[in-house]
This record gives sequence, C-alpha cells and structure tokens, in this order.
Amino acid sequence: MDLIESVQNNQVKEWKKLLTRKGRKKQSKYVIEGEHLVEEAIRAKAAIETILIREDKWSGYLDYDADRSVMISEEVSALLTDTVTDQGIFAVVHMKEEQQSITGNRPVLLLDKIQDPGNLGTLIRSADAAGFEGVIIGKGSVDLYNPKALRSAQGSHFHLPVIHDELLHWIEAFKKQGIEVYGTALDERAESYHEVSSKDAFALIVGNEGNGVDPEILKQTTKNLYIPIKGKAESLNVAIAASVLMFSLYK
Amino acid sequence: MDLIESVQNNQVKEWKKLLTRKGRKKQSKYVIEGEHLVEEAIRAKAAIETILIREDKWSGYLDYDADRSVMISEEVSALLTDTVTDQGIFAVVHMKEEQQSITGNRPVLLLDKIQDPGNLGTLIRSADAAGFEGVIIGKGSVDLYNPKALRSAQGSHFHLPVIHDELLHWIEAFKKQGIEVYGTALDERAESYHEVSSKDAFALIVGNEGNGVDPEILKQTTKNLYIPIKGKAESLNVAIAASVLMFSLYK
Repeated sequence: MDLIESVQNNQVKEWKKLLTRKGRKKQSKYVIEGEHLVEEAIRAKAAIETILIREDKWSGYLDYDADRSVMISEEVSALLTDTVTDQGIFAVVHMKEEQQSITGNRPVLLLDKIQDPGNLGTLIRSADAAGFEGVIIGKGSVDLYNPKALRSAQGSHFHLPVIHDELLHWIEAFKKQGIEVYGTALDERAESYHEVSSKDAFALIVGNEGNGVDPEILKQTTKNLYIPIKGKAESLNVAIAASVLMFSLYK
Repeated sequence: MDLIESVQNNQVKEWKKLLTRKGRKKQSKYVIEGEHLVEEAIRAKAAIETILIREDKWSGYLDYDADRSVMISEEVSALLTDTVTDQGIFAVVHMKEEQQSITGNRPVLLLDKIQDPGNLGTLIRSADAAGFEGVIIGKGSVDLYNPKALRSAQGSHFHLPVIHDELLHWIEAFKKQGIEVYGTALDERAESYHEVSSKDAFALIVGNEGNGVDPEILKQTTKNLYIPIKGKAESLNVAIAASVLMFSLYK
C-alpha cells in the first residue's frame, strides 16, 4: 500500500480545500472525520470517493474496501482535521442533494440564517430523532458540510434529506399543498405552541441565533409560534427551542 | 485611575488562577467575561469583588461603581480571557451557593457527570427558561464556573440557585418529601415520557453524554423516563433531551 506522506502532494492540497466552503462548492465534495461518521457513511451507502487512514491506524480498518482506501502520514492527517487532535480516519464524500426527496408528507424543518455550526448540526440530529422528513437550510446559514456542523449532526444527514435552498420557494410550495407553515417569533404576534395540536405534516422555521427568523419570512407563514418563558432567561438556544417544538408538535 | 499593565502583577496572577477549577476552589471566586454577563451580575446584585475594564473600553463604563472598577491593559485582558478575542470587560465574583434555597416546591434539574461545559451552561439556561426552581450539579461534572459553561448559561445562574452537591443525598430528601424523582435512560426499563402527566414538583436527572445517568442513581429514582426516537439518530444531545422533558413535564 502506498503512503501519501507529503502535505505538498497535489491530491492532499485538493482535500485540504474541502475544509473551506468555497473549495467544497467547487469540487462538490466534503470531508467527514472519525470512525463513527465514516461507518455511518458506509452504512448509508453514501457516495464515498476515498477513505483516508493514518498509517498507524491502517491495521484497524483492513475490512474496508481497499480500492478506495489510502494510507496517509501523520502530517497529512493533522493537516486535514479541523480539530486539535485528529482521529486518523477520514472520508471524502460526494455531495448529494435531492430536492424531490422532500415531499411534505411528514414534518419538515426549515433553517433561516443559522450561524453556529454546532447549532446547525444539533438541529439536524434532533430533526432526525423527532422523525422529521427532511431539513432545508436557507441562504445565509452556515452550511451542512462545515466540519463542526457534520460532527454535531453525528451522521444524521445520512438518515434524512438535508438540502440547501431558498426558503420562500418551499414555504410557497407547502402552502399550495395545504400544509401549515409555522414560523417562530418571540413577540406577542405569535401564538403559544401549547395552542397548537400535534400534526402529521407541517413545516417549522427557526432562525438566526441573535435575530430570529427574518420578518419577511414570518409574513409568509400560516402561523407564528413562541415558547412561553417562565423564568428570567431572555431566550432559549435555537436548537433547544426547535427541539421542544418538534417533539411537541409531532408525536 | 491607575492602570494594571503587567501580566506579572501579583493581583493579575491571582485572577489568572481563577481560570482553573483548582484556583476557583481555593479563592472561592470566579471570573465572568463580557458586557452581558457583567450587567446580569450587577442586576442580580451578585457579590462582585472587582470589575476589570480594558483601557480602550473604560469610557464606555463610566456609570459603573468606580470603587470596584479597575483599568487593565490589553495584555492583561488577553491573559484573562479563555476565548480567542477577549471582550475587554470582566468581573471577579464571589461564589455563593445556598443549599437551602432549593426546596422542591417547583421542579429541580439534577446533572450527573456532564462533561461538556457548553452542555452544562445550556442545561442551566434551559432550566431557567422552563421555570425550574434550581439545578444541582453532581460530582464528576464539569463545574458551573468553567468560563465556557458560564458563557453558555448566559447569566441564568444569577436567576435560579445552582449548587454543586451529592445527588444521592438530594434524591433521598426529595423522596422523603413525596416528590417524584425521574431518571432518564435509553433502555426498555424506562417509560416513555408521554405516559407521565405534567406536574408542579418533581426532580429530573440527566447524565453523562456518553454513558447517561449512573446505574446506581437510576436504582434510586421513583421512575425512569425515555424519549422515543422516531428517526435513525442513536440519541439526542443531553441538553436537548433535558429541555424536551422539562418543557413537556412542567407546563
């Protein structure tokens, strides 16, 4: 087995670019790191291009498809991680976003300008656990393929469709199908979520950590909801708020 | 106004020690950073010893009590932050933990061996928002005064009592008062939380990110609950799971 040793290797340089949004967009690929995510990708039959294994870890993964596995040096492994301590196993995966895989037959989560990749990933993981059909990430959000977002999602993006698209387009389409679209807002124009009964199909929109959902989007919803705060906290973390709503509105 | 300029200053060295758990325990003080947290501490009449303001920020805080404010250099400010970019305003606060402030008259959240400071802080913020009476952090958890935990809690520890104590002692005391104690567990010995009706007083225990609540603790509860997972996610983030339960069980 050949070893890719140098951080100057051209292939390594191309992989390194996948740590940036621009590089991912250009190559239409992304990198996942860690045994858990790689195993999830294999199980989900994701379009894996290459599995990268640090030389000292090689013997632990002999059962992986040798044709698509390559051995990398410690230096290359350290270059490709976005964490302090790399896990020594990566996969380069082709992006696959199928818009038509989201039908609205089950609840869908819409994300408006989420800034924190940890929140984005946790939102996807929670939507998966809540049994949602899919997640739509709007413009101005951190993207799914951000390494920290992928880490927080813990492989859930292999379980349900997650796409990047224009939210207003989907809101319009859901409304045409007669599907309720719930925005979330903190002010009194919104209704307490306790007033809304559990449903089998709806769209739920949560927004930016500082500013919430864009007012232009809130105007297009069929209803806006809020979570009554009992204590003295000013607000809830967006992933927490979304999860309380997802589990309450879809039982 | 004197300026504390040198990172070699003895007072600065004592403050720096407050970034470690050992230093905090020894001095019985902790550091908060950022305007939001400092304002929360002032509003809550917390036992503030000193407010530290970076020299270029000084004029923005002239309305602060001058007797307890000191001006620090950029170097000192950079030394005292645990983030990449310091916010230029800190407060040194005396710890205050009043065990008797938790009575069990309203729901109480118990935390068993939480490892991630972001999770710990988010749990406290969510317990505050859900109207819980207090939070008890058991042995083996990251502590409240960890700078990242304080940041994630966003000042909620000034709103409700948060104490560090032995969980089994409290579980025993709650049961003696006839208060339900709910553990959380993933296996079938637990009951779906949908089967439990909303109550005005109970204790809820959530546990370690990898291992959940200690089995020895689960044996002492009056009931153990789980959140049914509908999708293919293996689990929920602990702060998400706790929040779904808190908002569902206390309405």
